[in-house]
Amino acid sequence: MTATIDLNADLGESFGPWPMGDDDALLDIVTSANVACGFHAGDPLVMARTVALCRDKGVGIGAHPGFDDLRGFGRRRILDPDPASLRAMLIYQIGAIQGMARAAGTSVRHVKLHGALSNMASEDAVLARRCIDAIREADPTLVVMAMAATPLESEALAAGAPVAREVFADRAYNDDGTLVARGTAGAMIEDPDEAADRVLRMIDERALVSVNGKRIAIEPQTVCTHGDSPSAVAMAERLRTRLEQAGVRIAAFPAS
Amino acid sequence: MTATIDLNADLGESFGPWPMGDDDALLDIVTSANVACGFHAGDPLVMARTVALCRDKGVGIGAHPGFDDLRGFGRRRILDPDPASLRAMLIYQIGAIQGMARAAGTSVRHVKLHGALSNMASEDAVLARRCIDAIREADPTLVVMAMAATPLESEALAAGAPVAREVFADRAYNDDGTLVARGTAGAMIEDPDEAADRVLRMIDERALVSVNGKRIAIEPQTVCTHGDSPSAVAMAERLRTRLEQAGVRIAAFPAS
Amino acid sequence: MTATIDLNADLGESFGPWPMGDDDALLDIVTSANVACGFHAGDPLVMARTVALCRDKGVGIGAHPGFDDLRGFGRRRILDPDPASLRAMLIYQIGAIQGMARAAGTSVRHVKLHGALSNMASEDAVLARRCIDAIREADPTLVVMAMAATPLESEALAAGAPVAREVFADRAYNDDGTLVARGTAGAMIEDPDEAADRVLRMIDERALVSVNGKRIAIEPQTVCTHGDSPSAVAMAERLRTRLEQAGVRIAAFPAS
Amino acid sequence: MTATIDLNADLGESFGPWPMGDDDALLDIVTSANVACGFHAGDPLVMARTVALCRDKGVGIGAHPGFDDLRGFGRRRILDPDPASLRAMLIYQIGAIQGMARAAGTSVRHVKLHGALSNMASEDAVLARRCIDAIREADPTLVVMAMAATPLESEALAAGAPVAREVFADRAYNDDGTLVARGTAGAMIEDPDEAADRVLRMIDERALVSVNGKRIAIEPQTVCTHGDSPSAVAMAERLRTRLEQAGVRIAAFPAS
Repeated sequence: MTATIDLNADLGESFGPWPMGDDDALLDIVTSANVACGFHAGDPLVMARTVALCRDKGVGIGAHPGFDDLRGFGRRRILDPDPASLRAMLIYQIGAIQGMARAAGTSVRHVKLHGALSNMASEDAVLARRCIDAIREADPTLVVMAMAATPLESEALAAGAPVAREVFADRAYNDDGTLVARGTAGAMIEDPDEAADRVLRMIDERALVSVNGKRIAIEPQTVCTHGDSPSAVAMAERLRTRLEQAGVRIAAFPAS
Repeated sequence: MTATIDLNADLGESFGPWPMGDDDALLDIVTSANVACGFHAGDPLVMARTVALCRDKGVGIGAHPGFDDLRGFGRRRILDPDPASLRAMLIYQIGAIQGMARAAGTSVRHVKLHGALSNMASEDAVLARRCIDAIREADPTLVVMAMAATPLESEALAAGAPVAREVFADRAYNDDGTLVARGTAGAMIEDPDEAADRVLRMIDERALVSVNGKRIAIEPQTVCTHGDSPSAVAMAERLRTRLEQAGVRIAAFPAS
Repeated sequence: MTATIDLNADLGESFGPWPMGDDDALLDIVTSANVACGFHAGDPLVMARTVALCRDKGVGIGAHPGFDDLRGFGRRRILDPDPASLRAMLIYQIGAIQGMARAAGTSVRHVKLHGALSNMASEDAVLARRCIDAIREADPTLVVMAMAATPLESEALAAGAPVAREVFADRAYNDDGTLVARGTAGAMIEDPDEAADRVLRMIDERALVSVNGKRIAIEPQTVCTHGDSPSAVAMAERLRTRLEQAGVRIAAFPAS
Repeated sequence: MTATIDLNADLGESFGPWPMGDDDALLDIVTSANVACGFHAGDPLVMARTVALCRDKGVGIGAHPGFDDLRGFGRRRILDPDPASLRAMLIYQIGAIQGMARAAGTSVRHVKLHGALSNMASEDAVLARRCIDAIREADPTLVVMAMAATPLESEALAAGAPVAREVFADRAYNDDGTLVARGTAGAMIEDPDEAADRVLRMIDERALVSVNGKRIAIEPQTVCTHGDSPSAVAMAERLRTRLEQAGVRIAAFPAS
């Protein structure tokens, strides 16, 4: 295999006195970090430390904006009838992490929506477009990390945004390319080798396969490995090793 | 009198369903706006609207960062032993409002600390320097609006930061140049003409006079008019009129 | 007309530095107050003051729990897949206001769900039952104020909870007895006399009439007058006067 | 030794997606739990689970109110000039946990102030009295857990409140009976046997000894073991074992 793949993980998800994830270890494995921006996780100090770590380890920095819902970790769908609120919320979070990056002598390269906001924008083209437009108003050079084969990807492309197509190593897919909801049986792939096999197949076949066997043509550019599960580091490490053994080059996707 | 003076007000202090102040009217009077950044007041949507209003009315946009304390409106002193937290909190808020301004096709020109953080930094040179350093890490071109004759002013100058020296139209001063605490008798000047007289005297005499009659040499560059009192608009209007009648030119201080 | 009707309003919706509504005036008009519990509005100090005012004016005190969403004022639907969270959130808020009432030498008599939570529970019997069960776990003597002709009312009755059936003076109804969404044309009745006419007709005909003319049999026990609109006091005053002129007795519904 | 001692720990300090401490293990060791009330830690769901665990394991339930400061974990001193705010904040949190306990078929037995609020009330008799008064307004039967030999203890006694005198197993003391601040060298006792030796000596000598060797006469009734350090369970376990080996009876202090 001669593909090049980016590995991304959600990081900077500690908050105040509460640590989450082993960012230090994950940042030795992944090539892109989606850094929480203080609305669903992260706080200014956590962000400052995470951005500095990314800079020191040469990992691409991404804004990871989510709903303003710490208690629900941005995983509760919040139905806000006001598109202006959504726009402002995205611009605010992106601006905050860009400020952090500038102060650390580096910059933000991509944006990935978090949790429920990501799920909603991956299902709903209107919402997806609103998010894309807000991201582009914030900074049109930011690469949009979008789940392959979703309205979010197609709306980003339609808007002319630079896109990094994302697949999930450890999540099962529905027939429409969305993720099987957490909590559903089989939603999470827990065996690292099974996850690696799935990713290698996606790269090789340029397709993902849903829980019902449906094939959806995609061209994966970045693979999400989750940072907040207890076995996250082992999973990411195994995935990277397996991909490298198969001849896949692990490197950050190009900036726009 | 041939002086030029900037008039500034704290704006964008609404939050969610709760309006505060008559920003629209005040933005026709003042030349600089200190825009709340979501920690003590303001929310992303309020910030977006306030920044757009400032842009449309040609009013200079300032970041107005405060403690993370909505309930206390940033007026409660929060003693945080960790300087890294303070730094990150300032960079975050400045980054967020800069992102808002960029998305609106404009930019942030100055920074003014809010409430208890401002009071603390106006009394304590160590804290003042930490704030100045964080502001300069965020963006060294930002003008620091600092209370004249306080450690905040001297630390900003010592750090080589561009400074706009601020006086208060409607607040009484202690002998050390700090403000008499709200709630103390005589702390607030409520008569607009008395406030205007005070400011004209400060400009004329290049000095402020404390409650005990002590004179402190200063050179006022910007006058604060408060946005959140019921009579804020009338006060600001009268102040502007009186200053203009006295030959003072009302204009934003120069960007750095 | 010989009916007895309770008038209720949402109160205690100020937060920190932000006032909302004219509670003092409304508490001279209504007979039941739905007091925000700090999650969507209100804060401990506001709650303490509101409960004391209710006690002094002899107005029945109700818990008014909502989603944990100050910025959205509890009006954004938050989809939480975890029923245990909903239960705990209701018990927490009810406990907090009961503690406030006890400290003020009085007690909480009813519970009314707020905003999006109320709307969702008025449409969905499963959610309604979860709310009712949580309220009853908190205190089975609390009267559930429920929109007449909704699943919330029927589930409360099915659970054996004491119920006060509520109608809205100033909101249009859909055919299924739910409220026409805010923002829809005709959703809000702004003329006080039109609102009074509607309520008198509901009492007289023991029915409400939807926007499409559909009649739904109900027996109104309490009428909601909104506390957060600018004309709230005038509306409530006029409503009370008109009801009294028509011979309706205005009094709190009995405690259970 | 024939003394009886209560062992207490701060519990229920998880928040949303962020776990903290091993409550399950600690609740097999301690006899009193100080349960966070959602302001500095804990959330309604965490509180519900913690209260249920305490009930099932026969551990005494205490309210553990703190400043409204999740990010700072209630450890930042917040200077609020308004005593009415402090009062309301305490009554609110105590009411919330009492509601949780009632819904779980049990009750709250004591109150222990958290973090910075506890430190401030242990140094300042005026603040201590305000806290005591608020607790008594909330419920005069609640036992006040107060650091031995501090103004909090003396004010509680002066107010006629039932008191449980507390000593710390793993913290060094200043000459005035307050704790040496975290972060100061020697502030934390990390060796479980050293901590146990200290407690046994306090019980035996009816005195605590400050870092400077000053003896302060006290009669310990409850010993705090911290729940949020990594080695909390081992420390608590060793302490309990050592106390029992020395003949000390471990049991909850009596309710009032």
